[in-house]
Amino acid sequence: MKQTVRIAVTGAAGQIGYSLLFRIASGEMLGYDQPMELQLLEIPPAMDALRGVVMELEDCAFPLLEKIVATDAPESAFADVDLAILVGSRPRSPGMERKDLLEANGAIFTVQGKALNSCARKHVKVLVVGNPANTNCLIALSNAPDLDPSQFCAMTRLDHNRATAQLAQKVDCKVESIAGLAIWGNHSATMFPELGSATVDGTPALEVVDLQWYESEFIPSIQQRGAAILNARGLSSAASAANAAIEQMHDWYLGTADVTSMGIFSNGSYGISKEIVFSYPVVCDKAGVHVVEGREMDEFSRSKIAITERELLEERSAILHLI
Amino acid sequence: MKQTVRIAVTGAAGQIGYSLLFRIASGEMLGYDQPMELQLLEIPPAMDALRGVVMELEDCAFPLLEKIVATDAPESAFADVDLAILVGSRPRSPGMERKDLLEANGAIFTVQGKALNSCARKHVKVLVVGNPANTNCLIALSNAPDLDPSQFCAMTRLDHNRATAQLAQKVDCKVESIAGLAIWGNHSATMFPELGSATVDGTPALEVVDLQWYESEFIPSIQQRGAAILNARGLSSAASAANAAIEQMHDWYLGTADVTSMGIFSNGSYGISKEIVFSYPVVCDKAGVHVVEGREMDEFSRSKIAITERELLEERSAILHLI
Repeated sequence: MKQTVRIAVTGAAGQIGYSLLFRIASGEMLGYDQPMELQLLEIPPAMDALRGVVMELEDCAFPLLEKIVATDAPESAFADVDLAILVGSRPRSPGMERKDLLEANGAIFTVQGKALNSCARKHVKVLVVGNPANTNCLIALSNAPDLDPSQFCAMTRLDHNRATAQLAQKVDCKVESIAGLAIWGNHSATMFPELGSATVDGTPALEVVDLQWYESEFIPSIQQRGAAILNARGLSSAASAANAAIEQMHDWYLGTADVTSMGIFSNGSYGISKEIVFSYPVVCDKAGVHVVEGREMDEFSRSKIAITERELLEERSAILHLI
Repeated sequence: MKQTVRIAVTGAAGQIGYSLLFRIASGEMLGYDQPMELQLLEIPPAMDALRGVVMELEDCAFPLLEKIVATDAPESAFADVDLAILVGSRPRSPGMERKDLLEANGAIFTVQGKALNSCARKHVKVLVVGNPANTNCLIALSNAPDLDPSQFCAMTRLDHNRATAQLAQKVDCKVESIAGLAIWGNHSATMFPELGSATVDGTPALEVVDLQWYESEFIPSIQQRGAAILNARGLSSAASAANAAIEQMHDWYLGTADVTSMGIFSNGSYGISKEIVFSYPVVCDKAGVHVVEGREMDEFSRSKIAITERELLEERSAILHLI
């Protein structure tokens, strides 16, 4: 029997949390032989709803789920955790400026960064899902000086999956036929879903689709996909975001030979500023996350990357007092 | 590569559907080597929301999910399906009499029974989740004369899982330590969660817990668990119901040596009327669902079973014109 893994999830009674917890507890994230304890964090007004979620988790009689903690105290939620998935964040309310949004989330992620620093296990891996994910991740890791920045990442796997699915649909192939695609930069409308090194059954993707579609349809559709879902459902993406979180943590924890996308504390690769959390093409193994180096970047790609880098530097300026 | 399985899900844009579809599509229900097509049914006012759900399913880039159909026509949803999960039903609105509820759902399940009869593959397996599940199941199978009643079942797996979890919590053991437990009768407050043949690590459960707890706490708490969840969450059970649907279909499709509970068209076992859909202890194999015969039933158990049988016969009387 494997040793029990302790997993914290914040915003656990929210929409994404509700789609996420049952799949984690069933064994989908870490494997069907990995026992776990869930440590669930919510804000005080959501504690009743969270108790209902806990009852439903109990009602599934999941063999791998050994214990559930439900709390509104970050120190309890993060106590001795091996993994943390930070889903809860302050959504943008009507009329709210981006600066106010960053500030409101800054308050959450400074507290959580400090609590992770003092309470989590020293090898903890922290995945930030709550938006603005990259900058929330930057705030959290900056407030956890005893942890290595490489122990934090921001989720861009949903964008990666969306790009994979859209390309597969366009060229009418299976999703497994697609490799090497990458999301660069911020999980926002400036992100750059890049096909320059992507392949379809081994053939360069840009030999299979035309540049006009790539630049004028594909890129904007991935950038705006969240808004399109919101428009259709009347609610923002929850199940697909939860699915991406499961896949990103799965690959980070267990490793993957496939190129995927993760927002990581920049190491300066590809000339990106070292002070931000930036999504790169990566592979994961036991040693950690490795940026896929040496991809050819043309002028178009470099210009797209510069836009999203600039946005992240602006976000950083707005929360400089928090890091 | 296995042959593609076509799966219909009704009420696909509802709460249970939203918790169900992504787990089916990921491979949790039928296995990670089983490609599938999903055929999703909704009522016309929910088609926009369903389109949003389809977009999110696409956004997961599930390798096993080959095609998605979204429709408001039962004949399209059930065309050539191997499996159907009937989730959509008319919920009870305030002031609605049970008779009106049965009638409203009767209209749905007569239509769906006929459509399954004419459009589904001849070996189709149909799981009814929408409440009142047993009687909805009876209506559907009665309107599908070319299919065998054994191709239909009603979901009592959620009750089974709840009972397992509550017993494990009471005796402080792992859920895997519990075997032989059964849900008898109707998926309603009259159901009988029976421990007479249940064991905890091989010891009879009723030697481990006292009769007072069994009769006065355990049984009512399982019967009323749905209401307790609704009270805590402000919403009815969705993720735990979806989980139970996945497990019940998994075991039915792939077989299980464990005793589980399913609502099936009664074969008269244990002296139960042959005209109703009744939950029994069962095992499943390639040949189908088999009632576990020969369990000892004392006077207490027989009296509890009589109550839930009577309720099902009353429900049957109310919808007699539909079957």
